[in-house]
Amino acid sequence: MDKLKHIFRKSRLIRSERFENDAEHTWHLAVMAMLLAEHANEPDLNMLKVFKMLLIHDVVEIDAGDTFAYDDKGLEGKYERELAAANRLFGILPEDQRDECMQLWEEFEARDTGEAKFAVAVDRLQPLLINVQNEGQSWKEHGITSDRVLERNRHIGEGSTALWQYAEALIGKAVEQGILK
Amino acid sequence: MDKLKHIFRKSRLIRSERFENDAEHTWHLAVMAMLLAEHANEPDLNMLKVFKMLLIHDVVEIDAGDTFAYDDKGLEGKYERELAAANRLFGILPEDQRDECMQLWEEFEARDTGEAKFAVAVDRLQPLLINVQNEGQSWKEHGITSDRVLERNRHIGEGSTALWQYAEALIGKAVEQGILK
Repeated sequence: MDKLKHIFRKSRLIRSERFENDAEHTWHLAVMAMLLAEHANEPDLNMLKVFKMLLIHDVVEIDAGDTFAYDDKGLEGKYERELAAANRLFGILPEDQRDECMQLWEEFEARDTGEAKFAVAVDRLQPLLINVQNEGQSWKEHGITSDRVLERNRHIGEGSTALWQYAEALIGKAVEQGILK
Repeated sequence: MDKLKHIFRKSRLIRSERFENDAEHTWHLAVMAMLLAEHANEPDLNMLKVFKMLLIHDVVEIDAGDTFAYDDKGLEGKYERELAAANRLFGILPEDQRDECMQLWEEFEARDTGEAKFAVAVDRLQPLLINVQNEGQSWKEHGITSDRVLERNRHIGEGSTALWQYAEALIGKAVEQGILK
Protein backbone atom coordinates (compact mmCIF):
# COMPACT_ATOMS: atom_id res chain seq x y z
CA MET A 1 0.00 0.00 0.00
CA ASP A 2 2.91 2.31 0.72
CA LYS A 3 3.74 2.27 -2.99
CA LEU A 4 0.61 4.24 -3.90
CA LYS A 5 2.31 7.25 -2.28
CA HIS A 6 4.80 7.18 -5.18
CA ILE A 7 2.21 7.28 -7.97
CA PHE A 8 1.91 10.88 -9.12
CA ARG A 9 -1.01 12.51 -10.88
CA LYS A 10 -1.01 15.44 -13.29
CA SER A 11 -2.49 17.90 -10.78
CA ARG A 12 -0.23 19.87 -8.51
CA LEU A 13 -1.16 20.64 -4.90
CA ILE A 14 -2.85 24.01 -4.49
CA ARG A 15 -0.35 26.86 -4.88
CA SER A 16 2.50 24.36 -4.92
CA GLU A 17 4.91 22.92 -7.48
CA ARG A 18 4.50 19.40 -6.14
CA PHE A 19 2.36 16.89 -8.02
CA GLU A 20 -0.35 15.15 -6.05
CA ASN A 21 0.08 11.45 -5.36
CA ASP A 22 -2.66 8.85 -5.43
CA ALA A 23 -2.65 8.16 -1.69
CA GLU A 24 -3.19 11.76 -0.58
CA HIS A 25 -5.63 12.26 -3.49
CA THR A 26 -7.68 9.32 -2.22
CA TRP A 27 -7.76 10.69 1.29
CA HIS A 28 -9.01 14.01 -0.09
CA LEU A 29 -11.80 12.22 -1.99
CA ALA A 30 -12.89 10.28 1.08
CA VAL A 31 -13.16 13.46 3.17
CA MET A 32 -15.09 15.16 0.36
CA ALA A 33 -17.45 12.17 0.17
CA MET A 34 -18.00 12.41 3.93
CA LEU A 35 -18.79 16.12 3.84
CA LEU A 36 -20.74 16.21 0.56
CA ALA A 37 -22.82 13.04 1.01
CA GLU A 38 -26.03 15.02 1.49
CA HIS A 39 -25.75 16.19 -2.14
CA ALA A 40 -25.84 12.67 -3.63
CA ASN A 41 -28.75 11.96 -5.96
CA GLU A 42 -29.54 8.67 -4.28
CA PRO A 43 -31.13 9.33 -0.88
CA ASP A 44 -30.01 6.31 1.16
CA LEU A 45 -26.45 5.90 0.05
CA ASN A 46 -24.42 3.14 1.73
CA MET A 47 -21.55 5.39 2.82
CA LEU A 48 -19.53 2.47 4.17
CA LYS A 49 -19.43 1.13 0.62
CA VAL A 50 -18.60 4.56 -0.80
CA PHE A 51 -15.64 4.84 1.56
CA LYS A 52 -14.34 1.35 0.83
CA MET A 53 -14.76 1.89 -2.91
CA LEU A 54 -12.87 5.17 -2.82
CA LEU A 55 -10.13 3.82 -0.53
CA ILE A 56 -9.17 1.07 -2.96
CA HIS A 57 -10.19 2.52 -6.37
CA ASP A 58 -6.71 3.79 -7.28
CA VAL A 59 -4.67 0.93 -5.81
CA VAL A 60 -4.45 -0.66 -9.28
CA GLU A 61 -2.25 2.28 -10.30
CA ILE A 62 0.59 0.78 -8.24
CA ASP A 63 1.05 -1.57 -11.20
CA ALA A 64 -0.82 0.22 -14.00
CA GLY A 65 0.37 3.78 -13.34
CA ASP A 66 -1.75 6.94 -13.45
CA THR A 67 -3.46 7.60 -16.76
CA PHE A 68 -4.18 11.29 -17.34
CA ALA A 69 -7.91 11.85 -17.82
CA TYR A 70 -7.34 13.56 -21.19
CA ASP A 71 -4.70 11.20 -22.55
CA ASP A 72 -6.73 9.48 -25.29
CA LYS A 73 -3.86 7.21 -26.24
CA GLY A 74 -3.20 6.25 -22.62
CA LEU A 75 -6.91 5.55 -22.11
CA GLU A 76 -6.73 2.81 -24.78
CA GLY A 77 -6.16 -0.48 -23.01
CA LYS A 78 -6.44 1.23 -19.61
CA TYR A 79 -9.14 -1.16 -18.37
CA GLU A 80 -7.12 -4.24 -19.36
CA ARG A 81 -3.95 -2.89 -17.69
CA GLU A 82 -5.86 -2.06 -14.54
CA LEU A 83 -7.71 -5.36 -14.48
CA ALA A 84 -4.40 -7.24 -14.57
CA ALA A 85 -3.18 -4.98 -11.76
CA ALA A 86 -6.34 -5.59 -9.73
CA ASN A 87 -5.94 -9.33 -10.12
CA ARG A 88 -2.33 -9.24 -8.98
CA LEU A 89 -2.66 -6.69 -6.16
CA PHE A 90 -5.99 -7.74 -4.65
CA GLY A 91 -4.85 -11.33 -5.20
CA ILE A 92 -2.29 -10.79 -2.42
CA LEU A 93 -5.20 -10.70 0.06
CA PRO A 94 -7.11 -13.65 1.52
CA GLU A 95 -9.86 -14.82 -0.86
CA ASP A 96 -12.83 -13.10 0.81
CA GLN A 97 -11.02 -9.76 0.89
CA ARG A 98 -9.71 -10.20 -2.63
CA ASP A 99 -13.28 -10.77 -3.85
CA GLU A 100 -14.62 -7.78 -1.93
CA CYS A 101 -11.93 -5.47 -3.33
CA MET A 102 -12.40 -6.76 -6.89
CA GLN A 103 -16.15 -6.20 -6.62
CA LEU A 104 -15.70 -2.71 -5.22
CA TRP A 105 -13.22 -1.80 -7.93
CA GLU A 106 -15.42 -3.17 -10.72
CA GLU A 107 -18.46 -1.43 -9.31
CA PHE A 108 -16.58 1.88 -9.27
CA GLU A 109 -15.43 1.38 -12.85
CA ALA A 110 -18.93 0.36 -14.06
CA ARG A 111 -20.66 3.36 -12.40
CA ASP A 112 -24.00 1.59 -12.28
CA THR A 113 -24.92 1.90 -8.61
CA GLY A 114 -25.72 5.00 -6.58
CA GLU A 115 -22.57 4.47 -4.50
CA ALA A 116 -20.30 4.18 -7.54
CA LYS A 117 -21.90 7.19 -9.23
CA PHE A 118 -21.36 9.33 -6.17
CA ALA A 119 -17.78 8.09 -5.63
CA VAL A 120 -16.98 8.85 -9.28
CA ALA A 121 -18.59 12.29 -8.97
CA VAL A 122 -16.26 13.18 -6.12
CA ASP A 123 -13.26 11.75 -8.02
CA ARG A 124 -14.04 14.08 -10.95
CA LEU A 125 -14.88 17.12 -8.86
CA GLN A 126 -11.69 17.16 -6.81
CA PRO A 127 -9.18 17.80 -9.64
CA LEU A 128 -11.55 20.46 -10.98
CA LEU A 129 -11.44 22.29 -7.65
CA ILE A 130 -7.65 22.04 -7.54
CA ASN A 131 -7.31 23.23 -11.12
CA VAL A 132 -9.46 26.29 -10.49
CA GLN A 133 -7.44 27.11 -7.35
CA ASN A 134 -4.25 26.73 -9.43
CA GLU A 135 -5.53 29.02 -12.20
CA GLY A 136 -5.95 26.19 -14.67
CA GLN A 137 -2.46 24.67 -14.20
CA SER A 138 -3.03 21.18 -15.58
CA TRP A 139 -5.45 22.41 -18.28
CA LYS A 140 -2.82 24.87 -19.48
CA GLU A 141 0.10 22.42 -19.24
CA HIS A 142 -1.78 19.91 -21.39
CA GLY A 143 -3.76 22.24 -23.69
CA ILE A 144 -7.16 21.07 -22.45
CA THR A 145 -10.20 23.08 -23.63
CA SER A 146 -13.55 23.63 -21.91
CA ASP A 147 -15.50 21.31 -24.24
CA ARG A 148 -13.31 18.41 -23.11
CA VAL A 149 -13.59 19.40 -19.45
CA LEU A 150 -17.39 19.51 -19.76
CA GLU A 151 -17.46 16.19 -21.59
CA ARG A 152 -15.14 14.48 -19.11
CA ASN A 153 -16.91 15.73 -16.02
CA ARG A 154 -20.52 15.29 -17.09
CA HIS A 155 -20.53 12.04 -15.07
CA ILE A 156 -20.59 14.17 -11.92
CA GLY A 157 -24.30 14.76 -12.61
CA GLU A 158 -25.05 11.02 -12.47
CA GLY A 159 -23.90 10.97 -8.85
CA SER A 160 -24.99 14.43 -7.81
CA THR A 161 -27.04 16.97 -9.75
CA ALA A 162 -26.13 19.61 -7.18
CA LEU A 163 -22.39 19.03 -7.51
CA TRP A 164 -22.62 19.02 -11.31
CA GLN A 165 -24.42 22.37 -11.27
CA TYR A 166 -21.66 23.69 -9.06
CA ALA A 167 -18.99 22.19 -11.32
CA GLU A 168 -20.58 23.59 -14.48
CA ALA A 169 -20.64 27.04 -12.94
CA LEU A 170 -16.96 26.68 -11.98
CA ILE A 171 -16.04 25.66 -15.52
CA GLY A 172 -18.00 28.59 -16.96
CA LYS A 173 -16.26 31.00 -14.62
CA ALA A 174 -12.85 29.50 -15.50
CA VAL A 175 -13.55 30.25 -19.18
CA GLU A 176 -14.62 33.81 -18.35
CA GLN A 177 -11.46 34.35 -16.30
CA GLY A 178 -9.35 33.08 -19.19
CA ILE A 179 -7.77 30.21 -17.23
CA LEU A 180 -9.54 27.63 -19.44
CA LYS A 181 -9.75 28.02 -23.23
CA MET B 1 -8.00 19.98 3.23
CA ASP B 2 -5.27 20.25 0.60
CA LYS B 3 -2.97 21.72 3.28
CA LEU B 4 -2.76 18.41 5.16
CA LYS B 5 -0.63 17.15 2.25
CA HIS B 6 2.08 19.56 3.40
CA ILE B 7 2.24 18.37 7.02
CA PHE B 8 5.13 15.93 7.28
CA ARG B 9 5.64 13.22 9.86
CA LYS B 10 8.89 11.76 11.19
CA SER B 11 8.53 8.47 9.28
CA ARG B 12 9.90 8.12 5.78
CA LEU B 13 8.11 6.14 3.10
CA ILE B 14 9.34 2.55 2.85
CA ARG B 15 12.77 2.39 1.23
CA SER B 16 12.56 6.09 0.37
CA GLU B 17 14.12 9.32 1.61
CA ARG B 18 10.81 11.15 1.52
CA PHE B 19 8.95 11.85 4.75
CA GLU B 20 5.33 10.73 4.90
CA ASN B 21 2.66 13.42 4.96
CA ASP B 22 -0.50 13.35 7.04
CA ALA B 23 -2.88 12.95 4.09
CA GLU B 24 -1.26 9.85 2.63
CA HIS B 25 -0.68 8.50 6.16
CA THR B 26 -4.40 8.83 6.86
CA TRP B 27 -5.30 7.00 3.65
CA HIS B 28 -2.95 4.18 4.67
CA LEU B 29 -4.66 3.93 8.08
CA ALA B 30 -8.13 3.81 6.53
CA VAL B 31 -7.15 0.95 4.21
CA MET B 32 -5.54 -0.88 7.13
CA ALA B 33 -8.72 -0.42 9.19
CA MET B 34 -10.76 -1.82 6.31
CA LEU B 35 -8.57 -4.89 5.93
CA LEU B 36 -7.85 -5.54 9.62
CA ALA B 37 -11.34 -4.89 11.05
CA GLU B 38 -11.87 -8.58 11.83
CA HIS B 39 -9.08 -8.33 14.42
CA ALA B 40 -10.77 -5.62 16.50
CA ASN B 41 -11.58 -6.60 20.09
CA GLU B 42 -15.11 -5.25 19.85
CA PRO B 43 -17.21 -7.59 17.67
CA ASP B 44 -19.75 -5.21 16.10
CA LEU B 45 -17.62 -2.23 15.33
CA ASN B 46 -19.34 0.68 13.55
CA MET B 47 -16.85 0.85 10.66
CA LEU B 48 -18.50 3.93 9.18
CA LYS B 49 -17.58 5.75 12.38
CA VAL B 50 -14.06 4.28 12.35
CA PHE B 51 -13.52 5.59 8.80
CA LYS B 52 -14.88 9.04 9.56
CA MET B 53 -12.83 9.23 12.74
CA LEU B 54 -9.64 8.27 10.95
CA LEU B 55 -10.31 10.54 7.98
CA ILE B 56 -10.48 13.67 10.14
CA HIS B 57 -8.27 12.76 13.12
CA ASP B 58 -5.13 14.49 11.81
CA VAL B 59 -6.79 17.52 10.22
CA VAL B 60 -6.01 19.54 13.35
CA GLU B 61 -2.33 19.29 12.40
CA ILE B 62 -2.94 21.78 9.58
CA ASP B 63 -2.81 24.40 12.33
CA ALA B 64 -1.11 22.55 15.19
CA GLY B 65 1.62 20.74 13.21
CA ASP B 66 2.74 17.15 13.65
CA THR B 67 4.00 16.27 17.12
CA PHE B 68 6.46 13.36 17.11
CA ALA B 69 5.18 10.52 19.27
CA TYR B 70 8.36 10.52 21.38
CA ASP B 71 8.79 14.28 21.70
CA ASP B 72 7.94 14.70 25.39
CA LYS B 73 8.34 18.46 25.23
CA GLY B 74 6.17 18.71 22.12
CA LEU B 75 3.53 16.54 23.77
CA GLU B 76 3.11 19.16 26.52
CA GLY B 77 0.23 21.40 25.54
CA LYS B 78 -0.48 19.26 22.47
CA TYR B 79 -4.13 18.77 23.38
CA GLU B 80 -4.70 22.51 23.88
CA ARG B 81 -2.99 23.38 20.57
CA GLU B 82 -5.00 20.76 18.74
CA LEU B 83 -8.27 21.75 20.40
CA ALA B 84 -7.79 25.34 19.22
CA ALA B 85 -7.03 23.96 15.73
CA ALA B 86 -10.13 21.74 15.81
CA ASN B 87 -12.30 24.69 16.81
CA ARG B 88 -10.96 26.84 13.99
CA LEU B 89 -10.81 24.20 11.24
CA PHE B 90 -14.02 22.29 11.94
CA GLY B 91 -15.62 25.68 12.64
CA ILE B 92 -15.35 26.43 8.91
CA LEU B 93 -18.04 23.78 8.32
CA PRO B 94 -21.80 24.16 8.76
CA GLU B 95 -22.84 23.65 12.41
CA ASP B 96 -24.03 20.03 12.13
CA GLN B 97 -20.84 18.94 10.39
CA ARG B 98 -18.66 20.97 12.73
CA ASP B 99 -20.30 19.21 15.69
CA GLU B 100 -19.90 15.77 14.10
CA CYS B 101 -16.21 16.34 13.35
CA MET B 102 -15.53 17.74 16.83
CA GLN B 103 -17.22 14.72 18.38
CA LEU B 104 -15.29 12.28 16.19
CA TRP B 105 -12.00 14.00 16.95
CA GLU B 106 -12.68 14.09 20.71
CA GLU B 107 -13.77 10.45 20.69
CA PHE B 108 -10.53 9.46 18.95
CA GLU B 109 -8.45 11.43 21.45
CA ALA B 110 -10.36 10.02 24.45
CA ARG B 111 -10.03 6.37 23.29
CA ASP B 112 -13.04 5.28 25.31
CA THR B 113 -15.16 3.58 22.64
CA GLY B 114 -14.46 0.42 20.66
CA GLU B 115 -14.28 2.47 17.45
CA ALA B 116 -11.76 4.94 18.88
CA LYS B 117 -9.65 2.17 20.41
CA PHE B 118 -9.45 0.35 17.09
CA ALA B 119 -8.73 3.54 15.11
CA VAL B 120 -5.93 4.40 17.54
CA ALA B 121 -4.56 0.85 17.31
CA VAL B 122 -4.20 1.19 13.55
CA ASP B 123 -2.67 4.67 13.93
CA ARG B 124 0.01 3.21 16.21
CA LEU B 125 0.63 0.05 14.21
CA GLN B 126 1.24 1.74 10.87
CA PRO B 127 4.43 3.68 11.79
CA LEU B 128 5.73 0.53 13.49
CA LEU B 129 5.33 -1.44 10.25
CA ILE B 130 7.06 1.33 8.28
CA ASN B 131 9.88 1.57 10.81
CA VAL B 132 10.56 -2.16 10.67
CA GLN B 133 10.57 -2.06 6.85
CA ASN B 134 13.01 0.86 7.03
CA GLU B 135 15.33 -0.95 9.45
CA GLY B 136 14.43 1.30 12.37
CA GLN B 137 14.98 4.62 10.55
CA SER B 138 12.96 6.95 12.77
CA TRP B 139 13.93 5.08 15.96
CA LYS B 140 17.61 5.47 15.05
CA GLU B 141 17.28 9.10 13.92
CA HIS B 142 15.69 10.04 17.25
CA GLY B 143 17.43 7.60 19.61
CA ILE B 144 14.25 5.79 20.61
CA THR B 145 14.66 2.60 22.68
CA SER B 146 12.44 -0.48 22.83
CA ASP B 147 11.03 0.31 26.29
CA ARG B 148 9.61 3.56 24.90
CA VAL B 149 8.27 1.82 21.80
CA LEU B 150 6.52 -0.78 23.95
CA GLU B 151 5.13 1.88 26.28
CA ARG B 152 3.90 4.07 23.44
CA ASN B 153 2.27 1.27 21.48
CA ARG B 154 0.64 -0.64 24.32
CA HIS B 155 -2.63 1.12 23.40
CA ILE B 156 -2.81 -1.13 20.34
CA GLY B 157 -3.97 -3.91 22.66
CA GLU B 158 -6.99 -1.88 23.81
CA GLY B 159 -8.28 -1.91 20.24
CA SER B 160 -6.99 -5.29 19.14
CA THR B 161 -5.32 -7.98 21.20
CA ALA B 162 -4.33 -9.78 18.00
CA LEU B 163 -2.64 -6.72 16.50
CA TRP B 164 -0.84 -6.00 19.76
CA GLN B 165 0.52 -9.56 19.88
CA TYR B 166 1.73 -9.07 16.33
CA ALA B 167 3.23 -5.68 17.18
CA GLU B 168 4.98 -7.01 20.30
CA ALA B 169 6.54 -9.79 18.24
CA LEU B 170 7.70 -7.23 15.66
CA ILE B 171 9.28 -5.08 18.36
CA GLY B 172 11.01 -8.11 19.87
CA LYS B 173 12.36 -9.10 16.48
CA ALA B 174 13.56 -5.53 15.83
CA VAL B 175 15.59 -5.67 19.03
CA GLU B 176 17.05 -9.07 18.08
CA GLN B 177 18.01 -7.73 14.64
CA GLY B 178 19.69 -4.74 16.25
CA ILE B 179 17.55 -2.14 14.48
CA LEU B 180 16.00 -1.06 17.81
CA LYS B 181 18.10 -0.58 20.96
